Amino acid sequence: MTDQKYTVAVLGCGLIGQSWAALFTAYGYDVIGWDPEPKPLSVLQGQIARSRDQVRVPETARLKKGCFRLVDTPEAAVASAFWVQENAPELVPVKVDLYRRVEAAASVNTVIASSTSSLTWSELAPGLKYNRRFITAHPFNPPHIMPLVEIYAADEDARRTAVSFFRDLGREPVVLSRDVVGHIANRLASALWREAVNIVAENVADVAAVDAALVHGPGLRWSVVGAHMAYHLGGGPGGIEHYLKHLGPSQERRWSTLGTPRLTPDICERLVQGVMAEARGRSVAELEAERDRCLLRALSAREECRDQDEPD
Amino acid sequence: MTDQKYTVAVLGCGLIGQSWAALFTAYGYDVIGWDPEPKPLSVLQGQIARSRDQVRVPETARLKKGCFRLVDTPEAAVASAFWVQENAPELVPVKVDLYRRVEAAASVNTVIASSTSSLTWSELAPGLKYNRRFITAHPFNPPHIMPLVEIYAADEDARRTAVSFFRDLGREPVVLSRDVVGHIANRLASALWREAVNIVAENVADVAAVDAALVHGPGLRWSVVGAHMAYHLGGGPGGIEHYLKHLGPSQERRWSTLGTPRLTPDICERLVQGVMAEARGRSVAELEAERDRCLLRALSAREECRDQDEPD
Repeated sequence: MTDQKYTVAVLGCGLIGQSWAALFTAYGYDVIGWDPEPKPLSVLQGQIARSRDQVRVPETARLKKGCFRLVDTPEAAVASAFWVQENAPELVPVKVDLYRRVEAAASVNTVIASSTSSLTWSELAPGLKYNRRFITAHPFNPPHIMPLVEIYAADEDARRTAVSFFRDLGREPVVLSRDVVGHIANRLASALWREAVNIVAENVADVAAVDAALVHGPGLRWSVVGAHMAYHLGGGPGGIEHYLKHLGPSQERRWSTLGTPRLTPDICERLVQGVMAEARGRSVAELEAERDRCLLRALSAREECRDQDEPD
Repeated sequence: MTDQKYTVAVLGCGLIGQSWAALFTAYGYDVIGWDPEPKPLSVLQGQIARSRDQVRVPETARLKKGCFRLVDTPEAAVASAFWVQENAPELVPVKVDLYRRVEAAASVNTVIASSTSSLTWSELAPGLKYNRRFITAHPFNPPHIMPLVEIYAADEDARRTAVSFFRDLGREPVVLSRDVVGHIANRLASALWREAVNIVAENVADVAAVDAALVHGPGLRWSVVGAHMAYHLGGGPGGIEHYLKHLGPSQERRWSTLGTPRLTPDICERLVQGVMAEARGRSVAELEAERDRCLLRALSAREECRDQDEPD
């Protein structure tokens, strides 16, 4: 018999679903997965186990790892789960159809969380009968490594449950007051990338130079302090108040000079060529493995500062 | 007698100048400083020594630290220097006047590098007689910790000299092909901050939530891979070519939804209140010390991945 309290359903077992399963099982939850076109169970289990070994579980968390198994229907996946993490394709009708089946089979207290990156709560919630327990919980890829989970919940109880659930999983849940396309992180990333594309399009620097400037400058800084806080520290002893008073107008002027590039075939070609040069022959899989290795090192360095510098 | 080969002049000994002096002396250069209104020498030396202890000098670099001393005129500071790092106020006439005095006193081979963040080579170079040895070399604050130095030089030899000089100082020089206001890093930071302000202005999330989303999401990722490379990895096995083909249009749509906030008194007030809440009573000096401590930890974690993942 399955213990509902410790069972999570993962709907959609692609890259994101597998990474979630790695996180959940690392923290001792049993995971029941469903996918309309699943890979063979042994392949999935192997990939999940490899990612699970990368999850940083504190010693105080339970030691026994959870199990991962596959079932044939979403109904069977959710029947005994207290949490459902949905990672279906980013299409409203596909997700809404899935929610209908989930609601018919899940316990009334089960939270249904969507990993959606490009849709909003308001677009998806009308598809549910009891939408108070429906939330969006958008991870930053890969979720078993990256701490950020962006949460929007219309219901106060569901929000509290979600924050506590993800905190206990060693994540850093961030709560939105209003649901918007792209949540917070992808909007910030999109805004930055627009200018990164513009700099290449305007021949100011090539792709590798733009990426190096980010990694060795603002990216490094933003891994430690946020953008608002960075301007607070940029304002000297008077902080952000001083900054806004003296340099606010020059920021507004700079904003007006930022580019609005289009992804024309010519620009796309230059981006592709530039990234290929930067990759220096390394495959996407090799680059991903390097990224994850370095992220894990960065997170381990971060833990030493945790008590003092966490922004919340 | 002063050895020109190992003497650097630092013009303007405010926060940036002191941090440069810490870096230069850590690597064994003697630094001659000049400031129109200097702090007492003992105070400056104390601050420089404290920062110098934070500089990560590899064992292969020389062990003997350089000295820092102050002189009364820019002419005296540059007379025996092979490199001049100028950190005067961000006003064209002030800098140009200084260059005139520097040129009259410096050796003809001495590089004159401006730390300017908001002015360009093209605005400043007409102030020099021999502008081929003039470059902009913009550090990311604080320069004794942050690796990034953004370089623009019209002359190929000056550019090569600068890249090699900063590499030997353990920095990551990034070369611009064209000089623009804000170089690369501040343009990227400005673009991101505009949306960060917009998210607060539109009541999507508060200041602390925006900063937390950045630090635990894209900031952490960008400390390891740049923005272009991140989309390459986001494209799966097909990389950025696949990404641009399938998700390029949705990026363009998202760009069109990004905000264009103004720094009105009301928005400024909310930013100030939000940052104060995030600071939780910590002074700017305390927050800065925490930032630097965490940056140093992040850099030390990064060194373990250096050989494989450096973007250049």
